[in-house]
Amino acid sequence: MSVKKTTCSITLFLLMHGVYAQQKLSGFTGEHAQQQLELEARFDKSLSASSIGNNIKTLSAKQHYLGLPRDKWVADNILQQFKTYGWDAKLETYQVLFPTPRTRVLEASYPAGYKAVLKEPALKEDPSTGQPDELPSYNAWSADGDVTGELVFVNYGLPEDYEYLERLGIDVKGKIVIAKYGRSWRGIKPKVAQEHGAIGTLIYSDPKDDGYYQGDVYPVGPYKSEYGVQRGSIMDMVIYPGDPLTPGVGATENAQRLERSAATNLLKIPVLPISYHDAAPLLEALAGPVAPESWRGALPFTYHIGPGKAKVHLKLEFDWKMVPAYNVIATMKGNQYPDQWVIRGNHHDAWVYGAADPVSGLAALLEEAKAIGELAKKGYKPKRTLVYAAWDGEEPGLLGSTEWVEAHATELQQKAVAYINSDGNSRGFLGVGGSHALEPFVGEIAKGISDPQTKVSLFERKQAADVVSAQTTKAKKDILAKKDMTISALGSGSDYSSFLQHLGIPSLNIGFGGEGAGGEYHSIYDTYENYSRFKDPGFEYGVALSKVAGHAALRLADADILPFDFRSLSKTIANYTGELISMTDQLRESTAVENQIISGKAYQLAGDASKPLKAPATKSEVPYIDFSRLQNALAALDKAAHQLQRTGNSQLPTARRDSLNKALYQAEQQLLHQEGLPNRPWYKHVIYAPGFYTGYGVKTMPGIREAIEQRNWEEAEAQISIAAKAITRLTQTLEQLK
Amino acid sequence: MSVKKTTCSITLFLLMHGVYAQQKLSGFTGEHAQQQLELEARFDKSLSASSIGNNIKTLSAKQHYLGLPRDKWVADNILQQFKTYGWDAKLETYQVLFPTPRTRVLEASYPAGYKAVLKEPALKEDPSTGQPDELPSYNAWSADGDVTGELVFVNYGLPEDYEYLERLGIDVKGKIVIAKYGRSWRGIKPKVAQEHGAIGTLIYSDPKDDGYYQGDVYPVGPYKSEYGVQRGSIMDMVIYPGDPLTPGVGATENAQRLERSAATNLLKIPVLPISYHDAAPLLEALAGPVAPESWRGALPFTYHIGPGKAKVHLKLEFDWKMVPAYNVIATMKGNQYPDQWVIRGNHHDAWVYGAADPVSGLAALLEEAKAIGELAKKGYKPKRTLVYAAWDGEEPGLLGSTEWVEAHATELQQKAVAYINSDGNSRGFLGVGGSHALEPFVGEIAKGISDPQTKVSLFERKQAADVVSAQTTKAKKDILAKKDMTISALGSGSDYSSFLQHLGIPSLNIGFGGEGAGGEYHSIYDTYENYSRFKDPGFEYGVALSKVAGHAALRLADADILPFDFRSLSKTIANYTGELISMTDQLRESTAVENQIISGKAYQLAGDASKPLKAPATKSEVPYIDFSRLQNALAALDKAAHQLQRTGNSQLPTARRDSLNKALYQAEQQLLHQEGLPNRPWYKHVIYAPGFYTGYGVKTMPGIREAIEQRNWEEAEAQISIAAKAITRLTQTLEQLK
Repeated sequence: MSVKKTTCSITLFLLMHGVYAQQKLSGFTGEHAQQQLELEARFDKSLSASSIGNNIKTLSAKQHYLGLPRDKWVADNILQQFKTYGWDAKLETYQVLFPTPRTRVLEASYPAGYKAVLKEPALKEDPSTGQPDELPSYNAWSADGDVTGELVFVNYGLPEDYEYLERLGIDVKGKIVIAKYGRSWRGIKPKVAQEHGAIGTLIYSDPKDDGYYQGDVYPVGPYKSEYGVQRGSIMDMVIYPGDPLTPGVGATENAQRLERSAATNLLKIPVLPISYHDAAPLLEALAGPVAPESWRGALPFTYHIGPGKAKVHLKLEFDWKMVPAYNVIATMKGNQYPDQWVIRGNHHDAWVYGAADPVSGLAALLEEAKAIGELAKKGYKPKRTLVYAAWDGEEPGLLGSTEWVEAHATELQQKAVAYINSDGNSRGFLGVGGSHALEPFVGEIAKGISDPQTKVSLFERKQAADVVSAQTTKAKKDILAKKDMTISALGSGSDYSSFLQHLGIPSLNIGFGGEGAGGEYHSIYDTYENYSRFKDPGFEYGVALSKVAGHAALRLADADILPFDFRSLSKTIANYTGELISMTDQLRESTAVENQIISGKAYQLAGDASKPLKAPATKSEVPYIDFSRLQNALAALDKAAHQLQRTGNSQLPTARRDSLNKALYQAEQQLLHQEGLPNRPWYKHVIYAPGFYTGYGVKTMPGIREAIEQRNWEEAEAQISIAAKAITRLTQTLEQLK
Repeated sequence: MSVKKTTCSITLFLLMHGVYAQQKLSGFTGEHAQQQLELEARFDKSLSASSIGNNIKTLSAKQHYLGLPRDKWVADNILQQFKTYGWDAKLETYQVLFPTPRTRVLEASYPAGYKAVLKEPALKEDPSTGQPDELPSYNAWSADGDVTGELVFVNYGLPEDYEYLERLGIDVKGKIVIAKYGRSWRGIKPKVAQEHGAIGTLIYSDPKDDGYYQGDVYPVGPYKSEYGVQRGSIMDMVIYPGDPLTPGVGATENAQRLERSAATNLLKIPVLPISYHDAAPLLEALAGPVAPESWRGALPFTYHIGPGKAKVHLKLEFDWKMVPAYNVIATMKGNQYPDQWVIRGNHHDAWVYGAADPVSGLAALLEEAKAIGELAKKGYKPKRTLVYAAWDGEEPGLLGSTEWVEAHATELQQKAVAYINSDGNSRGFLGVGGSHALEPFVGEIAKGISDPQTKVSLFERKQAADVVSAQTTKAKKDILAKKDMTISALGSGSDYSSFLQHLGIPSLNIGFGGEGAGGEYHSIYDTYENYSRFKDPGFEYGVALSKVAGHAALRLADADILPFDFRSLSKTIANYTGELISMTDQLRESTAVENQIISGKAYQLAGDASKPLKAPATKSEVPYIDFSRLQNALAALDKAAHQLQRTGNSQLPTARRDSLNKALYQAEQQLLHQEGLPNRPWYKHVIYAPGFYTGYGVKTMPGIREAIEQRNWEEAEAQISIAAKAITRLTQTLEQLK
């Protein structure tokens, strides 16, 4: 017994004084860890909520969308701030296509005299609103068009909604559809409408989704009022984002450009967003079947699907101009590894004033740059190069970041250690998405920063919110048992997309939310007044964002060994694979049962003769699919990842350590498949992509998952093979690092 | 091998030619079965949809609530019909208390000048509406009162809603509450409000529940329009139904009566039902927290909980009169067992016109009586006595049926074979609730009658509806595998209550529904015009109801051996017991987890400081409860039930058979506990009762279930013991029949 006891004590000693001390800060040896924590403490002290508030106020004071002189003014202001803070900063400009509206007409023969207002009124309670020449409400990349047709209500306008229309015997061919905002990225709605033969699309904000149903409307509360409209891009970004004319290459002055008609991410039908004030008379005039419960909104009448008496006339014309997109790129050179770049970005363009989106995130980024600048003035030099970027043209389709990434692709795949993104920020709970090899790294940061309202760690507050909102006892128990932070997978919707999904650069997207919900998104009401009343009064969550992103940037810049942990990635991919397998099994079972129900005529027998509804079509039976290649590849990855983590790398000679670090940050590039996803070669990552029919929403292991969802079994097997090979490449890379 | 084969063939032969032929109609020997099926075929031929339609039209032509001369006119009309059809019929009259409104005032200081309309307007599209002196909208048994107070919105007004108010720090003491109709029986809402100290209750119909949110409103569609109001009783029927002054005894002329103030099923606060037209300005004027999502309705503003600026003034006075309740009792004497009664009933009183509720069910009952009368004219004589009843005063609180049952209690427990109830009928799917020993009997009937729309059996159509609407693949598979009909357990809400729950008489409640939803319930718009357009155009489901109830009555009247199958009852009670055990286990686990979450302060940490919400209180831990007595009692019951069913009773000598039959129909009385349920001794059945906080909604094994729900563990154990003893009494009864 005593021998055993001694062994235990020795192990304990080692743990306490060796490994534990080293693990205090992942990637840093004991002494460096202490230095880094002290550096972060000084960084934190420099952050100022009022300075963030001032930047939000200044940069959102006037509208500053892409192409406006004020857009350039904002870029110059940011440039000047970086320079003042001691950074080496410049503008990098691309020439991109960008349409703005010239004609917008929406009228109808019934209800008699109907003509849409298409105008968000100024509010006396919010002096920012109602400035001259506010950008009219529109969807960027709508086609020019002049169409007249019957109207059909299509719920959220997703594929399953059209399946239901088909059962009702309602065809949208030659008709104009009206869809609710929500559930999917807005661009999916006209895309699916176009696929079904619609000649135009209206998208409106139902008060159930972000209006009076949710809470008091602006200016009493933060929710969308009667005339509020969500602007926004409807570029088919799931094909490729960025300038539509220059897929895959930077939109430099002399880049080769497609004809606009050849751009595969542009739709062919006119699309217009409208307020519920403008939508209600059209919806109320619809005849046809009553919409099923899940389609109904909060307007005070019975929702019908249509068509009705009304013929709707929609006329849209746009000014298709080439405009400059000004990315602001600030650099602080690394003193040990100048060719290893830690990149941090947030966009600066806004649809109108954009106090929340994007200026709140941008102001936090600028605050980080200021604080790092102050550290530098007192002698701090990052080991690796810090690149701080403010992107232009994010709103129309991630233009600025995508063109920059495409222009610098080769260099970035060599040098980029990671990309840290933020966008609009709010009050509430820390949310992080990104590369799962960085999951433990993010958790360590979240445990080291206090929540402004409760003073517990960001991790602990998020955990509390999760456990309170979990719906089942089992889910609550699982959360209570969880010791580590979980990060989500990234789809699209902000500037990380090209870094992660086109180049395989490890990426994070960081923001706070959950207590700042409202209806101002992409409307003229996204103002400083609104933001400082409802989103983050006091701007303390701006400071919290600066801390999270700043600590991440500084740790990645200074780490002895970069804190990638491929065990987390391996575990996450294994979970995704498990999901895919059980999804396939469930689909097999539900298909068989549903086909049995259909062929037994239960739908006909159960149907209400006064409400005709066809039975759904039977679907092809689901075969058994061979996941074994993927499972074997994952088993090997898991082994390699664990072996790598067991190796004590911190004692490596410097030269060896340098090559290890480079290999670590380049490892995720092994997960790229150079031919890309089926029908969208721009997207190369085999683990993360925006969904073809969800848009912003991620599809993990997208090639396989979407093949299964679309019941393309051959493609599913082919994509399993592709994913397995990519994972095996990653495994081999990690094995070489041992 | 060949020997075995022979054995199989013999078994098969026996099955095909012996048992099978006998089993063609449960309870009938081969020859009798054939006769009975022929009788039913003749019965069916006599049924006429247009005759049902005519009765609906005639009997709903004028309002005929309890106490009106027209109520007597309807009773007399029914009496006359029975006589014409050849039945021995009479009125049995009781003297009951019944309040009608004298003063109804609802006004408020804010919004300025608010005064409730309290009036359902006549519709030119429906000539039945707007007749003179229509009964004003009110809740029967509201207390007289003149109260003024702040208003608080309490969602559906259930105990869990008050738990949430408590977390918000909102107290209703001294205030008036406004609750939505729905989710529970209406009487629960003011009862719970009173328990929490409220001084008055308004109940309104939100358009989300039965108005424009659900579909087009009357007269375009069937749903409730702006001014529609649901009348209805708020007697605390879960204490006891019937005349409040004569609990447990018949309200005969000279019965001993309580003082009204001593009636424990009457509330002490004023209660008024209103339309959403009258509710909307009050709701819109509320301040305080925004109502959580599950509380919100479909009115076009943000729902707040209150209180607000408004002080509401509610003044109600009633005319507390004694009135006669006229039950019509028609008899056709049995020629073999005149003292075995098969009872069939439906009420005849209505809140206003009552075309759907109750006349549609009543007209089907009269059609059965007519058809049976025609059979009798051609020589048919039932073996047992048929008693057909049309009850008065059901609407205010099951008055007519309860007083009759209480007055005839001893005789009924001797003679009543079963009670078959119906009430308002509609289009759609067969729904049957009742005593589970009759479950296979009901299934056999449902398999032998065609659905009017689809021509498949009623069983098959219900099965189709169930499988289509089931939410999970597992549920769908279970339904596809089901060969037998399931009947539900009965709570309250119609005239079966006293038969089943007070006397233990096997009961069934039968009706069609699912395709006739609307908002006319207890309003002036429940008219013939409405019914014949939306509920059952053509009255074919009236005929279907006549078939189901008629076949049930005739088979019970003529069976050689009464078709009770206690295996079904035993299996059902075993399922309930399983539910109780797993509910207790889940409650134990969820309590432990929730207490851990609460004491870990997760609610405080997750809370939004701008929306203060207290953490829920911790709850007492759930002990392990001894269910073994119940489980052992059930094992024995199951054995006895199987053994009884294996006995070939059809060959019994007649005398033995008679005593067997009487024992079979009296067996369910063994499940009565003479002291009744805790705090409500009128309810004596240990398996079925309306829930103390659900009202109409059933609580199976109510003593145990409600004790667990109320976390009264000692009472749960005591009630387990009571239920186990009752089940053992039933087992012993069955064992004596072998």
